[in-house]
Amino acid sequence: MKLHHVVKSQQFERKWLEREFFPLTREMEKIANKGGSDILSGKRMITLFYEPSTRTRASFEIAMNLLGGKVVFSTENARQFSSAAKGESLEDTIRILNGYRPDVIVLRYDEEGGAKRATEVSRAPIINAGDGTGQHPTQALLDLYTIQKELGKIAGITIAMVGDLARGRTVRSLSYLLSKFSDVKIYFISPEMAKMKKDIKDYLRRRKVWFKERHDLREIVSKVDVIYQTRTQKERGALSKEREKIKSFCIINRNVLNLMKKGAIIMHPLPHVEEIASEVDLDPRAAYFRQAENGLYTRMALLKIILN
Amino acid sequence: MKLHHVVKSQQFERKWLEREFFPLTREMEKIANKGGSDILSGKRMITLFYEPSTRTRASFEIAMNLLGGKVVFSTENARQFSSAAKGESLEDTIRILNGYRPDVIVLRYDEEGGAKRATEVSRAPIINAGDGTGQHPTQALLDLYTIQKELGKIAGITIAMVGDLARGRTVRSLSYLLSKFSDVKIYFISPEMAKMKKDIKDYLRRRKVWFKERHDLREIVSKVDVIYQTRTQKERGALSKEREKIKSFCIINRNVLNLMKKGAIIMHPLPHVEEIASEVDLDPRAAYFRQAENGLYTRMALLKIILN
Amino acid sequence: MKLHHVVKSQQFERKWLEREFFPLTREMEKIANKGGSDILSGKRMITLFYEPSTRTRASFEIAMNLLGGKVVFSTENARQFSSAAKGESLEDTIRILNGYRPDVIVLRYDEEGGAKRATEVSRAPIINAGDGTGQHPTQALLDLYTIQKELGKIAGITIAMVGDLARGRTVRSLSYLLSKFSDVKIYFISPEMAKMKKDIKDYLRRRKVWFKERHDLREIVSKVDVIYQTRTQKERGALSKEREKIKSFCIINRNVLNLMKKGAIIMHPLPHVEEIASEVDLDPRAAYFRQAENGLYTRMALLKIILN
Repeated sequence: MKLHHVVKSQQFERKWLEREFFPLTREMEKIANKGGSDILSGKRMITLFYEPSTRTRASFEIAMNLLGGKVVFSTENARQFSSAAKGESLEDTIRILNGYRPDVIVLRYDEEGGAKRATEVSRAPIINAGDGTGQHPTQALLDLYTIQKELGKIAGITIAMVGDLARGRTVRSLSYLLSKFSDVKIYFISPEMAKMKKDIKDYLRRRKVWFKERHDLREIVSKVDVIYQTRTQKERGALSKEREKIKSFCIINRNVLNLMKKGAIIMHPLPHVEEIASEVDLDPRAAYFRQAENGLYTRMALLKIILN
Repeated sequence: MKLHHVVKSQQFERKWLEREFFPLTREMEKIANKGGSDILSGKRMITLFYEPSTRTRASFEIAMNLLGGKVVFSTENARQFSSAAKGESLEDTIRILNGYRPDVIVLRYDEEGGAKRATEVSRAPIINAGDGTGQHPTQALLDLYTIQKELGKIAGITIAMVGDLARGRTVRSLSYLLSKFSDVKIYFISPEMAKMKKDIKDYLRRRKVWFKERHDLREIVSKVDVIYQTRTQKERGALSKEREKIKSFCIINRNVLNLMKKGAIIMHPLPHVEEIASEVDLDPRAAYFRQAENGLYTRMALLKIILN
Repeated sequence: MKLHHVVKSQQFERKWLEREFFPLTREMEKIANKGGSDILSGKRMITLFYEPSTRTRASFEIAMNLLGGKVVFSTENARQFSSAAKGESLEDTIRILNGYRPDVIVLRYDEEGGAKRATEVSRAPIINAGDGTGQHPTQALLDLYTIQKELGKIAGITIAMVGDLARGRTVRSLSYLLSKFSDVKIYFISPEMAKMKKDIKDYLRRRKVWFKERHDLREIVSKVDVIYQTRTQKERGALSKEREKIKSFCIINRNVLNLMKKGAIIMHPLPHVEEIASEVDLDPRAAYFRQAENGLYTRMALLKIILN
């Protein structure tokens, strides 16, 4: 598998993940521990963000730096500050930036399909760092790597994806990726109004992936290896009634910790707010800060594969 | 001609343009093709933008990077975020930044005369990257270089500057520069309310440059070598009535393409919106993306001249 | 004294200041004059600003650059643009950024106590670059260095701190530091409503530092070696009535210049607005632009001590 643009998590093959990507990510962790390398020396990255994201932008820019490459241009709110405010299309912005000779463009766009549109006019590889309610494929890669690293395997696990599944793009991208591994069981836990959308469920059915939908995390928590909690996304229009239900049935607190398997883990794309009680942070099964750190190593690996 | 501050396009001499600047810009294109050089190694740039501009800021910062220099501080909306919000004058900001030892300050200011004011207190060279409705001299340089590169000459050409000529600073700066070349003919095409201002026309008359004012692009398009289209600038207060007229008489679409000379080119400072129909992008005479790319090479050349 | 986190000015010992910090700062000035060094090569800084500050952010980032280190991630309005907008706590942001392996995090926070909270979860050293109405210890260091450099001594001087003393954090931090030197005399000059807060005055009394409170700068200006003027902080809620009083009794203008000692200096954390008349800038005793420049050298010194 030759990687150029990174648009959606479906594009990654299981063989590539297991034989190339995971081993390289482990190697990247060692490189980060040693303080970096210069394998991407002379390579130039542009980060073009139309929507705020400290975590994603920071991890990409620092990944590039740790490998000896340079971030030659960075903007953190292109929607508001760039020529987009004067009416320029995404395609034209990408065309022009290509003229400035980047080796890679990391793009966060605020509408679904932005990354795909960018690839249609870009010579330089585009990495989708999230496009509205669409996908966030590098998040899915770091999520998958975290499961592999924490549990030692992906095939055969049982995972509960929890919360506002209708609007969260991370659970969508992760569902696509998990379907490539055998015997994965998925519980979708959410209030009725925030259920996982039909397209993903149809996709899982076609690939014969076992899944069930439930409303109350506590009912099934003792069976799962991974709780993948998501944030109630005020900024994408979650209703307050729904949020109350999520709070009652989906929150992770001491009660849930008591019901969890000893070897299970809690993941979250972060930032986390009310959906995880603060006492949970100290439990060793809370894997979300380690998961965020894996974002650095997976992005280093991705950059090395694309640019080297 | 020794270059220190770059404030307005009048300051560039024809001889310097033809013998020094254009050849160096061609050389810079080769350096960019080879992935850069280190001739500005150890040099430090500050980019201080009081107004948004993806394109200009990106091309300056990447130009600096390609020559081995560093952007040591960059702000993309100084008006809103810097000490300007606390009432600091531009002069004081420039004085203080000088204390931080930059080798060059690239300044975009939101009021005419900002660059000139900055030069009066700055040891470090100031490059005017646009000052309100004033000038944008590096845009004029890249425009001129584009004409030279695309048509092989500047003297003797006929150019139509089209659209909101009253508010566009690029056409003002370009008019000054073109007046230095012999036998250039200029058509100013705009609605009555958006006509080129008197100061430029007086300047051209004094230098005996041939120019005429017209309302309808289609009348004269078959005679010109260059159509320089401009954007209707909503943010500088163009009226909607005027915009309608510009749309009727100044738009470039398939009809205009059919009337154009075979060897003519269409330029635009970009971003382009409604004033160029999308079908035009695919015509080889649409030179505006190549023009934007020339912005990188001309800014590399300028930085090399100023800093080396 | 081993330095890790920099949170408040009280933490600096007099001996460390005189024997280590001041000499190193002088050395840093020489390094800046020579165009930099590479003693921090391979070191990575994150600048995380929740509040605007051109001057402070620029001087930290350029200091890092001049010593050969890299700014690997920078955000200038984290409050508005980062995951803070999605409800993430400062502690979580700091935890996650630590996972990205910075060698130092420069933090400006918009609430008192932010820097302290950050240190509680950060492996990487935190440098407090201002926390709301709390402290701004690196400003205090540069202020102190300026006094030492301009007057040749700190012990025994008489200083007038002038203006809105209730809200200015620089005068608070500087008071703490000055109390470590013998025979310093302090006048606090302000309207009744903007008086220095009780905690600082109690601290000075406990340390037996001589101080007096006055309303009118002109009464005592002939006795002081340093006038430390401060800005009327509109954004922290200074009342207009108070501002009028400050304008009448605290302004520095030609009258005040005439009353000042020949060898005295005027300092100001900048930006300065109405509280210093423009004619003062040209007087050689106006030390505030030199003071701002010292910010570069003191921050270089601090980074070297912490990172090397």
